[in-house]
Amino acid sequence: MKVEGKHYRTIWLEENDPATLRIIDQQVLPHTFRVLELTTLENVVSAIRDMKVRGAGLIGAAAGYGVYLAALHADRSSRDAMLREIVSAGEALKATRPTAVNLAWAVERQLSAMTKMTDPAPIIATALSTAQRIADEDADFCRRIGGHGLELIEAVAAKKPGETVHILTHCNAGWLAFVDYGSATAPIYAAFDKGIPVHVWVDETRPRNQGSSLTAWELLQHGVPHTVIADNTGGHLMQHNMVDMVLVGSDRTSYSGDVGNKIGTYLKALAAFDNGVPFYAALPSSTFDWDLFDGVTGIPIEERDARELTHISGMTDEGEIATVRLTPTGSPAKNYAFDVTPSRLVTGLITERGVCAASAEGVFSLYPERAGADRVL
Amino acid sequence: MKVEGKHYRTIWLEENDPATLRIIDQQVLPHTFRVLELTTLENVVSAIRDMKVRGAGLIGAAAGYGVYLAALHADRSSRDAMLREIVSAGEALKATRPTAVNLAWAVERQLSAMTKMTDPAPIIATALSTAQRIADEDADFCRRIGGHGLELIEAVAAKKPGETVHILTHCNAGWLAFVDYGSATAPIYAAFDKGIPVHVWVDETRPRNQGSSLTAWELLQHGVPHTVIADNTGGHLMQHNMVDMVLVGSDRTSYSGDVGNKIGTYLKALAAFDNGVPFYAALPSSTFDWDLFDGVTGIPIEERDARELTHISGMTDEGEIATVRLTPTGSPAKNYAFDVTPSRLVTGLITERGVCAASAEGVFSLYPERAGADRVL
Repeated sequence: MKVEGKHYRTIWLEENDPATLRIIDQQVLPHTFRVLELTTLENVVSAIRDMKVRGAGLIGAAAGYGVYLAALHADRSSRDAMLREIVSAGEALKATRPTAVNLAWAVERQLSAMTKMTDPAPIIATALSTAQRIADEDADFCRRIGGHGLELIEAVAAKKPGETVHILTHCNAGWLAFVDYGSATAPIYAAFDKGIPVHVWVDETRPRNQGSSLTAWELLQHGVPHTVIADNTGGHLMQHNMVDMVLVGSDRTSYSGDVGNKIGTYLKALAAFDNGVPFYAALPSSTFDWDLFDGVTGIPIEERDARELTHISGMTDEGEIATVRLTPTGSPAKNYAFDVTPSRLVTGLITERGVCAASAEGVFSLYPERAGADRVL
Repeated sequence: MKVEGKHYRTIWLEENDPATLRIIDQQVLPHTFRVLELTTLENVVSAIRDMKVRGAGLIGAAAGYGVYLAALHADRSSRDAMLREIVSAGEALKATRPTAVNLAWAVERQLSAMTKMTDPAPIIATALSTAQRIADEDADFCRRIGGHGLELIEAVAAKKPGETVHILTHCNAGWLAFVDYGSATAPIYAAFDKGIPVHVWVDETRPRNQGSSLTAWELLQHGVPHTVIADNTGGHLMQHNMVDMVLVGSDRTSYSGDVGNKIGTYLKALAAFDNGVPFYAALPSSTFDWDLFDGVTGIPIEERDARELTHISGMTDEGEIATVRLTPTGSPAKNYAFDVTPSRLVTGLITERGVCAASAEGVFSLYPERAGADRVL
């Protein structure tokens, strides 16, 4: 998508220097637009852990490139030594963010491609092409999600001709969370680009404020009308018919349709259900956990540093970034980063293959190759 | 309650100078404990509007004292001129915060006491004694709420002997929101003082962070174990049996039991209902709107300055208060301050007369004198 009129992906290899990975530094948005260089596995691990890159698709792509950078700098004296180093790189990448399934998915995809190789040189070439393919597929899948979700928005628009379609979103499942387009935002961008009047209620998304700092920023860059609200507000808006649809992403989706997403998503799903507002999760199939039926008990919930809640950074009137403490010294805080929305509250899942019910039947109707006889249905 | 070991109310007249009203400045908590002097109606109006004093009971008490200060400085040349001035003071006070019913309640109580008077001097004396009575009653009613709510906490504690009772609260319905004790916190303080092991999950309560700055601060001062969480977190905690009871306050309660409280309360009520967690609103009867049956459509929702959401203040590492911007310049924001929780989600109301069902039948069983034949039941 565009930043100040120029097209960017969120992650890319330098055109003339494939040993240099570039990312948009999401830690300094929305106040500063800055591109960072990553050249080692360690750079990638800390960029993911410190959330300079974040979001389901983007950390998958980053992990793919991270394995490639590890291969590039690995001990090439023997195939086995090299693979051992790469496997351990994969472990380091997977350990950065426990809830996201895309990390493991990208690492496994890299490893299964590489273990077929017998020499160091093709291992590196394979790691590079696999990393690129993961990133390209991510962008392509999000584009397809946009097309399928557009039909849902068009159906709402058809029922209120000439009126604005109001969509509420939580966190950033925007193009900044992927390689391009986004998951939850892809249908919104598609509708906006087609001239459908849309307006987005942007949940601030405490404690890291991905909504007010990232989603608001990318919608603003693309010109999509939007309004930032406190996370507390969505229930009131839905009670008063001010939301036509809730559209969120997913960091890990059970094959029964339970949606593991940013903390607070579950509360919005409850409000949508209570007020008859459709609630959709948009996700590339890489976020499905094909081994998991019950998301509420089975999706591990990352607990992050309490300082993300007790302190906050922003820009002073003088244009400087400052960090301030919000809580009394001595008051402890807890920072659970995700929650799980049970499938019964989810109207549907928007995937790259189409829209399906949030149920094992629905998911396997789109992904029949995954419907093994051993699964609980 | 106590601050640094010394007992305070949130509002009081200077002992040797009844023309000087003192308040705890809640705008600079939790970083600074500061007492302010108010000597005029205008001082009181701006203290309420700028939320130096806030909370259902406290702004009622402040309005009572505000009418008294207006009377004290009014034109005493004739009874009618004086009363005209006082009526207009009452209008100014009522206009500061549209959702809170206590403001109007306190002003009407003052006016109905004064209109019986024929001379200026007794008008002032009556205004003073009525203001004091409003404040004393507020403290007394909160103390009683504590006693009734304590029984509910004791019942939970009895079911899990030796284990901690976890209570989630939203916003500040603490002693800082009243003259003393608080509404939602009164049962918690009563249980803690009785040696029942309690722990409070404190919702941060965006955008003004009354939870993380006021509730956390007062629990800390009293020594009650607590943990600050993002407003997004409660659903996850309730899904995982980490909350035994939700206890909130109310700014305006319909006589059918709909609870108008800080924005986001409705989302917590939905999560409590979905997980079978009891959800109680604690309130002195002054927050009942005896003319209102349907709170969801009938309670006016105050909309506050968007800057409360786009900017935030806190303390830097250097010990200075700084204000930072959180959102991109150019992104609009909306700041609805309250929402309404329908009575069907409320387990019960804890009032100064006891606990009742959140229904007209329940409310009128405690307040039979209010059950006029003309009400919709």
